[in-house]
Amino acid sequence: MEVTVLEVAPRDGLQNERAIVATADKIRLIERSVEAGLRRIEAVSFVNPQRVPQMADAEAVMAGVPRVPGVSYAGLVFNDRGLDRALATDVDEINVVVVATDTFSRRNQNCTTAEGVQRWSALARRAAASGVRRTVTIAAAFGCPFEGEVSAAAVLDLVRRVAAAEPDEIALADTIGVGTPDRVRTLVAGTAALVPGVPVRCHFHNTRNTGYANAVAALEAGAGILDASTGGVGGCPFAPAATGNIATEDLLYLLHRMDIGTGVRAEAVSATGTWLGEVLGSPVPALLGRAGGFPPARPGSQ
Amino acid sequence: MEVTVLEVAPRDGLQNERAIVATADKIRLIERSVEAGLRRIEAVSFVNPQRVPQMADAEAVMAGVPRVPGVSYAGLVFNDRGLDRALATDVDEINVVVVATDTFSRRNQNCTTAEGVQRWSALARRAAASGVRRTVTIAAAFGCPFEGEVSAAAVLDLVRRVAAAEPDEIALADTIGVGTPDRVRTLVAGTAALVPGVPVRCHFHNTRNTGYANAVAALEAGAGILDASTGGVGGCPFAPAATGNIATEDLLYLLHRMDIGTGVRAEAVSATGTWLGEVLGSPVPALLGRAGGFPPARPGSQ
Repeated sequence: MEVTVLEVAPRDGLQNERAIVATADKIRLIERSVEAGLRRIEAVSFVNPQRVPQMADAEAVMAGVPRVPGVSYAGLVFNDRGLDRALATDVDEINVVVVATDTFSRRNQNCTTAEGVQRWSALARRAAASGVRRTVTIAAAFGCPFEGEVSAAAVLDLVRRVAAAEPDEIALADTIGVGTPDRVRTLVAGTAALVPGVPVRCHFHNTRNTGYANAVAALEAGAGILDASTGGVGGCPFAPAATGNIATEDLLYLLHRMDIGTGVRAEAVSATGTWLGEVLGSPVPALLGRAGGFPPARPGSQ
Repeated sequence: MEVTVLEVAPRDGLQNERAIVATADKIRLIERSVEAGLRRIEAVSFVNPQRVPQMADAEAVMAGVPRVPGVSYAGLVFNDRGLDRALATDVDEINVVVVATDTFSRRNQNCTTAEGVQRWSALARRAAASGVRRTVTIAAAFGCPFEGEVSAAAVLDLVRRVAAAEPDEIALADTIGVGTPDRVRTLVAGTAALVPGVPVRCHFHNTRNTGYANAVAALEAGAGILDASTGGVGGCPFAPAATGNIATEDLLYLLHRMDIGTGVRAEAVSATGTWLGEVLGSPVPALLGRAGGFPPARPGSQ
C-alpha cells in the first residue's frame, strides 16, 4: 500500500505560529522537505497580507523553491485577486477552502457556506482554464468552534455541491481537532461514494490526541492522501505547546511500521522538525525527534 | 459499547517521573480518580524500595485510599517478598509482569523470560490460594529497546505459556511506544483466540504518537480494558516532555465521542491532570486540559 503525504508546514503550519519566519527559512524548509522525498507541498497562501502577515511573502517563497520534476507546489486561494497572484507565480495547484458552517465561514472568509461554494466554483473554472490543478477543502467537517457539532449529512451534501465544479481532489479537514475515527470513516467512505474517481485527502489536527487514530481510519476508509506538517507545527498561537497538524515525521513512523510506503525518509523529516523548532524558538510537538526511531540503529543501545 | 479504563498514573505514571511525589498527593490522586468514576486503579508497586524509591510508600498509600464498593486496587508484584507485602495490604488484585525478551527481562527483573513465566506461575498460585485476583502483563510485546523487533509468534507463544497459570486477565504492553495498529490487531485477536474467556487488556505508551491509534485498534480487535494515566504522565525521566502512557482524559475524550461508554467523567480527569502537573512541577502531556473539550459548553464561545 502507498500513501501520499502532503506537507503543509510552510503554509498551515507557519501561518498559525506566533513567530514570523524569514522567507529564506521558509525556502529552506521546503528544500529540506523535497530532499526528504516529499512530493506535494502546500507552500504558500495568496491571502491579503494585511490579514495574514505570516504569508505576505508568497511570491518571494515561490520564486525561491527548488523546481524538481514530480514535485507539486500548492497555494491557498480565497478570491480572484488571490488567484491572479497564484497564476502569476508557478504554483502547480491551487486549494480553495469552503467552510462547512456559516458562522465559521463568515468569520474566516466573510461569506456564507453557500457563497463559499459559489466562490470555489468560479475559482475552479478559472484555474481549469489556466491548466492549474485545483483542490477543494471542506473545513470544520468534524465540528465547528462556533456552531458545535456538524452533521455528516450536511458535510456530504457540501461534498456533492463542491464536486459539481470538478475538483481534482476533495479534502476533509478537522480544522479544530475534534474528529474521531468513526466519523472519519463515515465521511471518507461517504465522500468516496459520492465522487468516485476523485481522490480524497484528509487534514487532521492533533489538538486532543485523536489525529493519528483519525489518519489510520482515513486510510482504511479509502483516503489516499494525508496532510501533515513537519514538527507538528501550526498550533493555535494563543495556546503555547498545543499541537497543530499531525506531525509529518510521526505520521511517517506510523505508516512505515505498518508497511505503508510513502517514498519519504522519516529521519530526514524528523531532523527538519528539530531544525524548525530552533527557527521558531521552541521545541516542536512532534515526538519522533525526541524519542528517536525504532528499531534502534545500534543493537543494544536504548 | 462499554470499555473499562484502568488508571495507572499512581504507579506506572509516577514511578517514571523524576519527582518523588508525597504519599498524601498519591492518595489525593487516587481519591480524585475514584471521584471521577474510575473503578480500576493500579495504585502501587511492591518492589524493593532501594530499587524504586518512588514506590517505597506502597503500604502507606494502600492504607489511605478510599474504599468504595466496586473499586479495585491493583499492586505490582515481582516476587514472593512483594506478594507477602501485597497480601498484608488490602489490594484487590496483583499484577505480574513477564518481559517478552531475555535481555530486557534480565535488566528489568534479573531473570530470563522463561524464569519470569515460572515466577508468575508460582505467584499466581499463591494469589489464587489467597483469593486475590491476578493479572499478567507481557511487557515489550511490540518491541524491545535492546533486542529490537519482537515477533508476534514469540509473543503469542508467551501468551500460551502464561495462560497456563490461569490469569484473570492478560495484558499486552507496548512498553517503549513502538506498536502500530496492525500489530495491535494481530496480537489482541491472537491472544483472544488462544485464551477464550480471559479478558484482554492493553497498555500503550504514546512515545511516538501511535498510542491512541493503537487503543482504537485494540478495542476493534476485542480488548475490553485499556490502561491510561491521568495527564499522560510516566514519560522517561531522562527525556523531558516525552509523553508516557496514553492520557486518561484524552482517551476518554476519544472514546466518548465514538459513543463508547466508560462511566468516567473526562472533565474531572482532565482537571486532575492539570492538578497533577502542578504537583510534578511541569505541565502534563495530555492535550484535553490545554485544548478544552468539544462541543463547547457555551454555544458561540471558542
